[in-house]
Order: sequence, then structure tokens, then C-alpha cells
Amino acid sequence: MATGANVKRTEHLDAAFAPGSVAVIGAGPATAGRFYVESLQASGFAGPIYPVHPDGGQLLGLPIYRSLGDIAGPVDLAISCIPARLVPGLVRECAAKRVKALSMFTSGFSETGRETGRALEDEIVRMAREGGVRLIGPNCMGIYSPRCGVSFVPDFPRNAGGVALVCQSGGNAIYLVRLAAERGIRFSKVISYGNACDVNESDLFEYLAEDGDTSLVTAYIEGVKDGGRFQEVLGRLAARKPVVVLKSGTTTEGARTASSHTSSMAGSDRVWSAVLDGAGAVRVDTLYQLVDMMVTFQFLRPVKGRRVAMVGGGGGASVLATDACVSAGFSLPAIPSDVSRAMRSKLDSDAGLILTNPIELNLSPEVTHAMARTMLQHEGFDLMLANCVFGQHPWTPFDVWFDLFCDTIVRVYPEVDKPVAVAIESVLTNQEQHFAALRRRYVEARVPVYYSMADACLAVDRYLRYHEARGGASE
Amino acid sequence: MATGANVKRTEHLDAAFAPGSVAVIGAGPATAGRFYVESLQASGFAGPIYPVHPDGGQLLGLPIYRSLGDIAGPVDLAISCIPARLVPGLVRECAAKRVKALSMFTSGFSETGRETGRALEDEIVRMAREGGVRLIGPNCMGIYSPRCGVSFVPDFPRNAGGVALVCQSGGNAIYLVRLAAERGIRFSKVISYGNACDVNESDLFEYLAEDGDTSLVTAYIEGVKDGGRFQEVLGRLAARKPVVVLKSGTTTEGARTASSHTSSMAGSDRVWSAVLDGAGAVRVDTLYQLVDMMVTFQFLRPVKGRRVAMVGGGGGASVLATDACVSAGFSLPAIPSDVSRAMRSKLDSDAGLILTNPIELNLSPEVTHAMARTMLQHEGFDLMLANCVFGQHPWTPFDVWFDLFCDTIVRVYPEVDKPVAVAIESVLTNQEQHFAALRRRYVEARVPVYYSMADACLAVDRYLRYHEARGGASE
Repeated sequence: MATGANVKRTEHLDAAFAPGSVAVIGAGPATAGRFYVESLQASGFAGPIYPVHPDGGQLLGLPIYRSLGDIAGPVDLAISCIPARLVPGLVRECAAKRVKALSMFTSGFSETGRETGRALEDEIVRMAREGGVRLIGPNCMGIYSPRCGVSFVPDFPRNAGGVALVCQSGGNAIYLVRLAAERGIRFSKVISYGNACDVNESDLFEYLAEDGDTSLVTAYIEGVKDGGRFQEVLGRLAARKPVVVLKSGTTTEGARTASSHTSSMAGSDRVWSAVLDGAGAVRVDTLYQLVDMMVTFQFLRPVKGRRVAMVGGGGGASVLATDACVSAGFSLPAIPSDVSRAMRSKLDSDAGLILTNPIELNLSPEVTHAMARTMLQHEGFDLMLANCVFGQHPWTPFDVWFDLFCDTIVRVYPEVDKPVAVAIESVLTNQEQHFAALRRRYVEARVPVYYSMADACLAVDRYLRYHEARGGASE
Repeated sequence: MATGANVKRTEHLDAAFAPGSVAVIGAGPATAGRFYVESLQASGFAGPIYPVHPDGGQLLGLPIYRSLGDIAGPVDLAISCIPARLVPGLVRECAAKRVKALSMFTSGFSETGRETGRALEDEIVRMAREGGVRLIGPNCMGIYSPRCGVSFVPDFPRNAGGVALVCQSGGNAIYLVRLAAERGIRFSKVISYGNACDVNESDLFEYLAEDGDTSLVTAYIEGVKDGGRFQEVLGRLAARKPVVVLKSGTTTEGARTASSHTSSMAGSDRVWSAVLDGAGAVRVDTLYQLVDMMVTFQFLRPVKGRRVAMVGGGGGASVLATDACVSAGFSLPAIPSDVSRAMRSKLDSDAGLILTNPIELNLSPEVTHAMARTMLQHEGFDLMLANCVFGQHPWTPFDVWFDLFCDTIVRVYPEVDKPVAVAIESVLTNQEQHFAALRRRYVEARVPVYYSMADACLAVDRYLRYHEARGGASE
């Protein structure tokens, strides 16, 4: 094994993401450690879980070991929930026990801005490198690796998917996984890496470039410590897989906040733009946009152009949705005459039917289905966007029409190969469960769902630009 | 009464907003008219409600009249839910009955883009002007006037407030009232005016400038028919009351959609910006921003500057909130040393307490209250922004801390006179009722609440610019 400055930067990351056994250090009954044990159990971790606490006893049906050294079997991953001052001793024990990675929930290091915290962090890094232990954090939530039953939150999905998330903030990691889960996203590997004293974003990007389980890499980054290496690694990664990055700390005061959060040097926003653009990474501005890009890269079918057939909405909602769509660079061509003819032939009477784009397909299920299929098969349209705005209708409490429309889309989607995206927006907060169920139906049909037409258009535009930059002859 | 081209443009609007009696034309058991009757009953309309339908019978406990002429008493407001081709006859009956205003849910006029529809609309306008009847719509929801129990939706709040909404789209009017209601906004008068064949946005602005019940005028406009008059009326209105406008149809295709929605000529976006800026109106881009400005003008205390004390959040959420706040033109000064001293004196130990701005006041209720008060009373801060992001915490399902923090704000707010704004953002859609209850507590304390820190900062920035433009010596 490589040690010291020559350590291979992805060394032991396999063991961290797929440990055979996990020890939780500081796992008393009323500690953060207890919740790590609970999360591992809830996530179906199959290997041994070893709670460690000097008081001993039992925790969640498991015997508590008084020290790491007391554990008979090997330990691949240790999770530290003990005070910062005790961590150097723990690193020493980990080295002796040949623990491969130590993930540290423990805070109180360089992020405090105090010399003592910084010195303590330097000390554990030196000890870990000498001892061949990789450090994750400190001041982080650590690893969520659903294929292997590793998690730091009990309610995260147990099934895995193709998205990796490299997230400097633990709170944002939790928020993002929960938000993405509602929208059908499942993860290959998520890592909250905090102060990044040893394992950092560049190591993780390098690792994920080779990871067969990961098809999309997303990241929330407050700052990097070695900009040159980051640029190089990002370039290699982005050449192989799409990369989406939310960079925070872009303002002077945001950077100061980042520094007191994860001791990050945020760096100039202009430099970041140049680095991300140069590598062909997609840059986003909010957590919601980051999830929108996960949904888009995972679920949106290939898009060949910008000619939109828009359905749904209703008067004023359609006007606003049209503005949002056109502002994002799309066009809404008039309904072609052969489509109009085909549609009119489906109706007993065309009285009052206004065949414009956007179109309100507020008709019988059979006619709505036939019309949606006709529009999706027409060479004049590149994609369909559906705008479902709940709360605009005066007297139908559940806006029943959007449920019927969902039937149509779920039925027509496998019959065509054009891309479809759906925006579900609602003002009826007391009906949230109803919309959640509707979202789930689209998610199960693998139709990408967004929270507004503006969000959908922004995401599809970024997706198109990503592919245009790769496909263009001049590139 | 003025008739013909000399009609006073605000004539009869008093009667439309405060009718002594209402007739609903086309009020059979399974018609839109039925829902108008239901809405009037649910909203506590005190005068007589007359359903009219050729079949006669009973509806919701009321006798159905076979024609308008059969009603014995006077009728101030009539609501048309009959087909377009029957409307000319109805206008004639209204004139004979001396009905003051006819609001038309009926569509099928100029918005169809067909010559027949346009001609029909011209005809009813001519007849109404000759007969002294004001027309609202057609193709609209009409009037919500809670002080007088007039409504087009049964679930709108029955109590009134100071905000007027002039909304060309009925769906958007419904969405906006429901959204605003959740955030504590109550209305003086709301009007969905559709095709604006007679009563238009300029008439309504002229009327609302004089309306003692209205302190803030908000509007969703797809297009105006007489730009010169609009500019003049808007100038007079904006000189007296704040005006917030969402202009849609800003793109070519959005304008086409607006035309097929309410037959509006959308007009150049550049011209609109010049007109709104010139008058000192606040322009917004989305329905959500329109409600954010209602909340801000109604609830935010006067703001003297841009120095923010930010509380709440947590690591990554605070970094993003800081970026949003600074990007919107605010500053987050360091915690002044006298505040730090005062805060440290409240604590047994300052171990681990990082006194930065944003600050996580995750302490005992007494200490949190004392700290919030100290910060709010300090001359170094102009306002406090609280960032409550649910779903970032790993193991506290209800993010209990934000409830405790709400206790603090509700308690400290009456003790100080500085402005406070709260952003409540959540990823936990299954807990919507919990957040709704939390929002209600702030709303009841008259603390302005937003859906994200970025939304809050954008709204407060617009509010400050509005006042700066008026207060500046050079204006």
C-alpha cells in the first residue's frame, strides 16, 4: 500500500463505498453515533456493524465494544462521532487495526477558523497518511452507498441508480437525495466530504470517472484546495460522463460563509466559470436546478431540436408558459395543417376548438390520446412539454383533468420515441399528497417531471447545449 | 347617466363591486352558472341571488327565474353563463331591466380569432353602451369583492384586505388569490376581466386610484388596447399607491398565445418596461413574485438599509443563502464585537460557538431570544432574514428547531421595530401540513414569509428600490 505523499489518491475508496464491516465510534444511546447505526440497519447493511463506546452495553440489538481494538474481525470503514480532541487517538487505533477509511462526522477542526482546529486537522492528516488510513471529512456526513447498504440517513432509498453526488455540505447532500428521490432519481454513490482534509473532490472525480455504476456525476462544491489538479481531473471526467456542478460561495460574503462552514477557499467566480465551461461541465445555480439536471440526464429522451408542442395549462397559465419556453430558446410552431385536419376528423364538431400551440387537450380520453400521438409523431415537433398547473380551476377541487391527462401521457409515451417533459405546479398545498401521487405516476413511467415550465425549459436548454457542444462539427 | 362614447369610464363600477342583488344567467343544475350561485352563497352575499334559466325550477334552495324580466326587484349585477350567440339578447334584457353591469363568463368572442366572434363582441359593446350597461369580460371569471360577499370561487377567503388585483386571466386570478391567501394576503377587490371589451385595465386603475379600501394595486396584464390612456392612468395611480405589474405575452409566441386567450395585443416588451419604469410601478416576472410583492408591501416593516443579520439555515444552506442575499444587493456585516460580547455573556461556555453572520442560533429558547433581540436592536443591522430549510437535518423528522425558532421570532417581533422576513423552504413534501402550520404562525404574527431566501431577497430588493426611487432627492 502506498503511504505518505505518494499515496494513490483513489486508494481505499472502494472499501469506503463497499465496506465489509463498519465500526461507529461514539455510539452511545443518545449520540449521533446511534443514528449512524440505525441508518446502517435501516439501509440493509449486510456486514457486521460494530458500535464502539467506552461505556459498553447494548445498542439497537448490538453489543457495544469499548474500543476499536476490542473488535475481533476486520473493520473496513470507521465513522467518528467523538469529540475532535479524541480523534488523533482514534486515527492511531484505526491505523493499528488496518481500518481502510475513517469518515468523520466530528467537527471542530479547520472550519472553526482557529489555529488549534487547523493544527489538529493537520495532525490527523499526517497520522492517517503514515498509517495508510483514508480520511473522509472531518465535519461531514460521509457515505451513502445504497448498493452496499451504507447510509447516514435512515429514510434514504435502499435501491441504487446511476447518479453520483459529490457534496461538500452534509445538509445539502441530505436535501438533494430526498428531493431527487421524489423525482425518481436513485444514486450510485453519494459522499458528503466536509473539510476535505484528505479525500477531496478531485479524488472523488478521479474515482467516479472509472466507476462502472455511475453514469452521471453531480457535485455541490464550496471550494477546492488544488485548483490545477481539479481542472485536470474534471477535464478527464467530463470527457467520459456528463458532470453537473453547483458552485457556492460565489460572492465575497458567501465565500466567507463557506470558509467557516468547511474551511474552503471559494475562489473567483470568473475562474470557476472558465474552468467548468472549459471542461464542458454543466453549471447550475440552485439545489433545485441540480436535481432538475439529474432528472433530465437520467430520464429525458434524446432531443433533436427546439420545436415544442405544448399541451395543458389553460389560458393565462399557457401565456406564461409560452413566454418561459420561448425565453429559454425554444419555439412553438403553429399546429401544422395536416395535424389540424387529423384532429378535426376525430371530433364530431370543431365548434370552439382552437387548434393553437399551446393546446388545451380537454377532450375525451380517446381523442386526447389520438391527438397527443399525432403531435408526437409529427416531424414538425421535436419534443412535447406538458404544463399541469393545479389551482387555476375554479370548481374542480382536484383538477381532475390533469389525472386524465396523465393517463394519456403514460399510455402514449411507450408508443412513440419523441421526448416528453411534464411540469406539475400547484398552489393547493392541502392537496400535496395528490400531486405527489401524480408525480409518482409519471416517474414510474420514466417521464421527466419538473416543478414549473420555466424549470423544465431551463433544464432541457442546458441538456441541449451540453449535447450541442459535443455534437457540433466546429467543436 | 352617460351613454355612448361619452360614458364615464368608471361609471357603475361601484355597483359591480358592491351590488345590491345579483342575477346568474344560465344557472341550471349542471352549469357553470350553478357554481356562481354556490360561490355567492358560500361567500355570504347578503342581497338577493336570482338564478335564471329557461327551464325554471329550483337551484340550491332558490327559485330559478325563466328570464331576467321575470325578476320583480332591481338587479345591479348580472353574470352570463349562456352561449355567446345568446348574449346580444341578454344585453338587451339587461338594458331594459336597468342592470348596471354584466359580467360574462361566456367565451367565444374576439379571442377565437374568427371574424364572427369579433363582430359579436363589437355588437354587444355597441348595445351595452347604448343601454347604459357596463360589460365585464367576456371570457372572464368576473368579480371577487369579499367586503360585499361577491365571489366566483367558493373557497376564497370571506374576509377582506387592502390589496386589489386586476387580472386579465381568470385562471391566474384564482391561482393568485389562493396562493396569496396562504400567505396572509386579503383583498379589497379582484377582477378577472378577460377580453376587456368594455371595462378594461385603465378603467380599473382609474377606479382603484380613488378606492379607499385599496392600498396596493397589483395586476396581471396580457395586453392593453389604448396604450396612451393606460400610460396616463398608470402614472396617476402609481403617484398615489404602489402598483405591481406582471406583464405576460412578452415573447412573440407568448403574445400570439395571449391573443388567442384574451384577444390582447401584447405590445413590445421594451415599451412595456419603459412605461412601467417611467410610472414607478414595480415589474415582476412570475405569479409567485407578484404574491411576494403583495406580502412585502403588506407586511414588511420599513427597511432603512441593506445590512442583513441572517439567522438559521445551517452549513451548506447558509452558504447558498448568503450568495443569494449578496447577489440581490445586500451585505452581511460581521457580527459587531459588542454583540459578540453580549452573546457570549449569555452562555455558560462559548466552546464551539461560531459567531459569524449568518448565525445558527441553535441554543436554548431564552438565549436564542436574547440573541435575536440584541441583533435586532443593534444599529449595525437594518433587517433580519431568517432561513428555515427543512429536510437538511438527518435525524430530526420535523426539524424541531425551526418550530422553536418560530417561538423566538413571534416573541421578539413585537418588542423591536426592525423588519424581519422569513424564508421557509422544504423538501419534505409529506410534511406539507406541518410547514403550512408554521407559515400560519408567522402570518398571524404579521411577519412576511417567502418560499426561499432568493425569493425573499428579490422582493425586499424591489421594495427598497421602490422606496429609494421615491425618497431620492434627485427624483
